[in-house]
Amino acid sequence: MKSPVITLLTDFGTSDPFVGVMKGVMLSICPQARLVDLSHEVPPQSVTAGAYLLKTSIDYFPKGTVHLAVVDPGVGSSRKAVALKSKGHFFVGPDNGLFPAALKHWGMEQVVELTEKKYRLPNPSATFHGRDIFAPAAAHLAGGVPLARLGTKQNNWIWREIPKAFKGVQGWTGQVLWVDHFGNLITNLEARHLPKAFRLKIGKAVILNLATHYAQAKKGTVMALVGSSGNLEISVNGGNAAQKLGAGIGATVTLA
Amino acid sequence: MKSPVITLLTDFGTSDPFVGVMKGVMLSICPQARLVDLSHEVPPQSVTAGAYLLKTSIDYFPKGTVHLAVVDPGVGSSRKAVALKSKGHFFVGPDNGLFPAALKHWGMEQVVELTEKKYRLPNPSATFHGRDIFAPAAAHLAGGVPLARLGTKQNNWIWREIPKAFKGVQGWTGQVLWVDHFGNLITNLEARHLPKAFRLKIGKAVILNLATHYAQAKKGTVMALVGSSGNLEISVNGGNAAQKLGAGIGATVTLA
Amino acid sequence: MKSPVITLLTDFGTSDPFVGVMKGVMLSICPQARLVDLSHEVPPQSVTAGAYLLKTSIDYFPKGTVHLAVVDPGVGSSRKAVALKSKGHFFVGPDNGLFPAALKHWGMEQVVELTEKKYRLPNPSATFHGRDIFAPAAAHLAGGVPLARLGTKQNNWIWREIPKAFKGVQGWTGQVLWVDHFGNLITNLEARHLPKAFRLKIGKAVILNLATHYAQAKKGTVMALVGSSGNLEISVNGGNAAQKLGAGIGATVTLA
Repeated sequence: MKSPVITLLTDFGTSDPFVGVMKGVMLSICPQARLVDLSHEVPPQSVTAGAYLLKTSIDYFPKGTVHLAVVDPGVGSSRKAVALKSKGHFFVGPDNGLFPAALKHWGMEQVVELTEKKYRLPNPSATFHGRDIFAPAAAHLAGGVPLARLGTKQNNWIWREIPKAFKGVQGWTGQVLWVDHFGNLITNLEARHLPKAFRLKIGKAVILNLATHYAQAKKGTVMALVGSSGNLEISVNGGNAAQKLGAGIGATVTLA
Repeated sequence: MKSPVITLLTDFGTSDPFVGVMKGVMLSICPQARLVDLSHEVPPQSVTAGAYLLKTSIDYFPKGTVHLAVVDPGVGSSRKAVALKSKGHFFVGPDNGLFPAALKHWGMEQVVELTEKKYRLPNPSATFHGRDIFAPAAAHLAGGVPLARLGTKQNNWIWREIPKAFKGVQGWTGQVLWVDHFGNLITNLEARHLPKAFRLKIGKAVILNLATHYAQAKKGTVMALVGSSGNLEISVNGGNAAQKLGAGIGATVTLA
Repeated sequence: MKSPVITLLTDFGTSDPFVGVMKGVMLSICPQARLVDLSHEVPPQSVTAGAYLLKTSIDYFPKGTVHLAVVDPGVGSSRKAVALKSKGHFFVGPDNGLFPAALKHWGMEQVVELTEKKYRLPNPSATFHGRDIFAPAAAHLAGGVPLARLGTKQNNWIWREIPKAFKGVQGWTGQVLWVDHFGNLITNLEARHLPKAFRLKIGKAVILNLATHYAQAKKGTVMALVGSSGNLEISVNGGNAAQKLGAGIGATVTLA
């Protein structure tokens, strides 16, 4: 029996039954789906953070996975509801820039606006497209309905990239993209940006060496390493770098 | 293969393995069950909030779903452990008022007190009926055991409604039932209570217009709309209404 | 169809997609696995708390369950990655003391270091063994690969117990092992330590009686009872004992 995977990424939190209700809708349509939560703690309405988290996740899911992502400040407005196909995966959500970062390396095959009424709940609300439009579309895709049936083919979609590090005369300037649960600061600097000898600065902290793993540095030392997502991370062994450095999403990081 | 859905709603939080252990018990009894979390962040021992959240969720699950709900300040006391049937769904939990709001429109078919020992874990504890009594009952129902086998038929059950808005000479007076993850204030006022021209007051804020979706108002504006649950919500576009208005569960809302 | 259960216990939190990505890896290898979260809120890098939570959970899962536990301050260092077998269950994680408490009563059958490259992801990172080494091993075990194939048999493993209560001339001295979501203080004192008449002290609070369930005491009263894990708990009916007593993990409790 085919057991398609559907992932869920939202800014809905977990105190409300929003996510559970979307799962009820999906299991009503595609009872054999396997539902995997990526995160429901995307900062409210932060499309960029959602795009970053989705990008770091999709490589680890099997072909045929449907990625349902709803970070949707424009729900009910004119922004389009879309489904996309790339490399055998499907993506369902608002057309507001959530998907380009994930699909940049994979390439885009097909985009469809979710206009076909029979693949929605009847009488969709204006405030909860996750339940009424996106969840049904994701479940129908998981159940084998071809993408093209869900609506109208699109030639354009919103292309918005995650902020990139840039190179100036003094070296690279980047920023913190995400702060993880441990307080590690994930930056948009990458391993390939690092010269052999370097001087990494964030606020008043200066880091001169690259560690290979967290336990390598002394407890409490601020350190840099290439994290599991391939990006340069700033960490404190046994501590919380975000708290220690007073830094968060958007903080500037320079590399010289 | 039949894959029955079991939903879980508790005030257990997610830092303890309470919920995971209930799932272990259920998968031991009914390995093919599909488990969906509605919320484990019901405010501790708040039966009314649990009842509201359950009510807004059940319509989105397929026939045959078992809803396991444990918000149970009286665990181990004389309150009854029950299972109910309504419209092809089952409900399992304490008989303390968690279920009437959900079942008001559906009607009640059958109530059974969970007295049959072979459908419990051996030697149930006095403090964790979720694991020892409710989870086994839910799993047996999901696996096809008829409701009547789980114990003794009851003619009465605890009927407690969610507080209702009431109409006075000045118009409607309602209250905030729930604050969602975004800080939206969900009230017990409904769309049908709204006159064409109205004056909605909460604290010092006055709202004169109804929006159809969040992005419609200017950023930071306090607005009212009919939310996805059918109730009147007070929101701030791009902000947090609960914080901005200093209002929470129980706050008074008037409509004139 | 066999539907093996895999439990997950980590200190990863739920804001990052770490857990979701491990699930993607596991469902890619063993699509029929059923994934159950025990907790992802183990205090960061607290191996003892993780060991306690795992110990209280495993009895409720069916034979054949694979328990994946990652609380791993030494990731990337010389600590070993292991898989263990006991009583028909499997355990996968770092060899740092997470498992001995759980396995003390069950006994250990077999330990293997996870050295076999074909049961890992290619090019494992130094910072996320949960994804690259532990998740694949757990999924292969769930899918039926024999434990011995995953690597090299070990004769030794890290044995570290959860702190025990001890008996002095004045009676027993124990400590708080865990504070649950309701603020109940779970101690390492057990029912068998209790004399008929006793005097239980924590900070300035003295408790002289044992309750059988939470609702038994008056609202707001500090009470002791034998909790669902078999340990002595200190609770406040309708309140939060940790807050009321200003006590947390590690606080001393005496019994005379």
